[in-house]
Amino acid sequence: MAEGLPISFLSDYGDEDEFAGVCRAVIRQIAPDAPLIDLTHGIGRQGVRHGGLALANALPYTPPGVHLAVVDPGVGTARRPVAVTTVEEGRFLVGPDNGLLAPAIERFGGAARAIDISRSPFRLEPVSATFHGRDLFAPVAAHIALGARLDEAGEKFDPAELTGLDMPVAEAGDGELRAHALYADRYGNVVLDATLDQAESTGLQPGGRIDLRAPDGRFEAVWTATFADVREGEVLLYEDSSRRLALAVNNGSAAGLLDLSSDSEVTLRPA
Amino acid sequence: MAEGLPISFLSDYGDEDEFAGVCRAVIRQIAPDAPLIDLTHGIGRQGVRHGGLALANALPYTPPGVHLAVVDPGVGTARRPVAVTTVEEGRFLVGPDNGLLAPAIERFGGAARAIDISRSPFRLEPVSATFHGRDLFAPVAAHIALGARLDEAGEKFDPAELTGLDMPVAEAGDGELRAHALYADRYGNVVLDATLDQAESTGLQPGGRIDLRAPDGRFEAVWTATFADVREGEVLLYEDSSRRLALAVNNGSAAGLLDLSSDSEVTLRPA
Amino acid sequence: MAEGLPISFLSDYGDEDEFAGVCRAVIRQIAPDAPLIDLTHGIGRQGVRHGGLALANALPYTPPGVHLAVVDPGVGTARRPVAVTTVEEGRFLVGPDNGLLAPAIERFGGAARAIDISRSPFRLEPVSATFHGRDLFAPVAAHIALGARLDEAGEKFDPAELTGLDMPVAEAGDGELRAHALYADRYGNVVLDATLDQAESTGLQPGGRIDLRAPDGRFEAVWTATFADVREGEVLLYEDSSRRLALAVNNGSAAGLLDLSSDSEVTLRPA
Repeated sequence: MAEGLPISFLSDYGDEDEFAGVCRAVIRQIAPDAPLIDLTHGIGRQGVRHGGLALANALPYTPPGVHLAVVDPGVGTARRPVAVTTVEEGRFLVGPDNGLLAPAIERFGGAARAIDISRSPFRLEPVSATFHGRDLFAPVAAHIALGARLDEAGEKFDPAELTGLDMPVAEAGDGELRAHALYADRYGNVVLDATLDQAESTGLQPGGRIDLRAPDGRFEAVWTATFADVREGEVLLYEDSSRRLALAVNNGSAAGLLDLSSDSEVTLRPA
Repeated sequence: MAEGLPISFLSDYGDEDEFAGVCRAVIRQIAPDAPLIDLTHGIGRQGVRHGGLALANALPYTPPGVHLAVVDPGVGTARRPVAVTTVEEGRFLVGPDNGLLAPAIERFGGAARAIDISRSPFRLEPVSATFHGRDLFAPVAAHIALGARLDEAGEKFDPAELTGLDMPVAEAGDGELRAHALYADRYGNVVLDATLDQAESTGLQPGGRIDLRAPDGRFEAVWTATFADVREGEVLLYEDSSRRLALAVNNGSAAGLLDLSSDSEVTLRPA
Repeated sequence: MAEGLPISFLSDYGDEDEFAGVCRAVIRQIAPDAPLIDLTHGIGRQGVRHGGLALANALPYTPPGVHLAVVDPGVGTARRPVAVTTVEEGRFLVGPDNGLLAPAIERFGGAARAIDISRSPFRLEPVSATFHGRDLFAPVAAHIALGARLDEAGEKFDPAELTGLDMPVAEAGDGELRAHALYADRYGNVVLDATLDQAESTGLQPGGRIDLRAPDGRFEAVWTATFADVREGEVLLYEDSSRRLALAVNNGSAAGLLDLSSDSEVTLRPA
């Protein structure tokens, strides 16, 4: 039987190097029998937003426990390394306080407690300047999984000081929806910042045709349930599996066809 | 000790997103102690054939149990989500019925029973239109691993209705072998649809030189046991580790040098 | 509870195919309950050096046990497949004797014993010519994890015959340090062959400015502790998390900016 809380792990460490593997190894040294679930290590290097949303998408399906997340372009700067518990379900999140953890914390009712782990007794000495995943985040996560109390992991601070995630803001008005690309997934599907309510308030509706303006020109799209509801190469708007509005191309890449990168603006009107 | 049958998992979910990780998490919620073996998640987006052959290559080396496979460009269309048991060894396969499972089923003597899991009691509600791995395939696989009977997972149908895998057909005659590229692996080695018998019936033989015609021109090749039997940059024909005929370039890429993509025709004659 | 020694696994098998997964499956067949830690499978195809250094970086953080490593461009040639124990900590290493294991062996005090496993009784018959990971290395590693004695795994040979890792040699003199790129990591950070002592003997020092010559021209750099100590786009020299000297660009790629590939020479002088 497993001994210790389940630990999930998400990062931008990729698989070209030993970085994610070393963190797994550190966890196994401390908590040999805790279940370890790799969520993904392929988040892009600067992908704090993509990582944060991927984490929030995954956690409702992940066994409650310790959720380790490291997308940390600012490693070595003043950003705080933290451990947090959530109000709902008492989940533990461990990672850099750069906004990465914010959407997941929000999904579970906010932060009940927040701990600065910079000088955690659980850290591996000497803590390197560039690999906090190995020296700080992984060992703290493993000790919490084994049952350490959160306040043993470092120094308390006011959860209100936690950093939010920097996000664009969609606007609905004058019969159009001005939305932004949040990120593209492996298939080139582009997640937007607009809500279902915003879309419907501008007259867009499931099954309806859409006049879409993107950086690369004007496109016809349809609001459908899934890819196969349009012909190959056509653009669709759909509610994705995490209930976010997204753009896709059947058997193609919306990011490529519409030339969308992070924060690109798209405008949608009923056609 | 492990509790539950081993679950193997192959998909095209990649590692840029949380998709494979969320499926792992769903499995861990339901069957926390079942052994979980990731076969690969890097199959290409449209790679039903590559995925199907990779699965068939892997299963003889994989502990019998539940084999979850998801390469599903038609998610959301009418293709049936299925669970199948094989005649030999009673292995369980779970995935879309689009041909992906066919080579593995054939390898184990055919399908003994087939179940349509569209409305499985094990599915996660609401089932999204675009992420059946999370909502349908992973939970069904996990419940079978825990001991659920196959007919509890959905509705029986005639295994003869299962979809085969679309494959080209090699032809031998007039002293030449007309074969096709099935897929290229990470190293650029290209697996062919021809059998050893077909090759030998056209006078090709281990150790012999080959006159090879490919889309990118004419090449000299040699039938050898391994890469290092030819000089760097030379083309070889060999029997790969799954006993399929394949083309390679020592320290190079056959797919690149010969300009081979899926279904490309190559013609081989004794030189 | 886990039964069997922990097995760590590093390779160049990538994730586009089932290769790494099949090896994991073979291990699970033989040693179902041994902890299995994937270090990485994304080492480049010819990356014996990168793989060897990644392994040496990872093992001090990895639970002692069996360390399986396969980066094997010469599979099928005369290079010896081996199993080795180290003088310190008695770690077991299993892989091709092409230099890949050398830095890790050195890190643990050298090889106490070396075994040629070409005809190991633990191998899977027939051993393919091209997939020794599956047929030789993985089963040998799994049997050792289960408690097999090393001399049961094959034939002893003199550890002095083990192959070293081919490495460039940095030189310090005339007030300059002539170093070479060993490899670049996912982020484009470039690890050098020079030691801290060599750098300091040429007058370079933490905090100091550096005149850097690279294949792509002349650059200003600074020796700092971490990326964020310089402005975006600036070059830094730093001691990486494995205590090797490395070049980086804050929010950029040193490999790209300086046009460095494996063995590229760079010259550093105090500015």
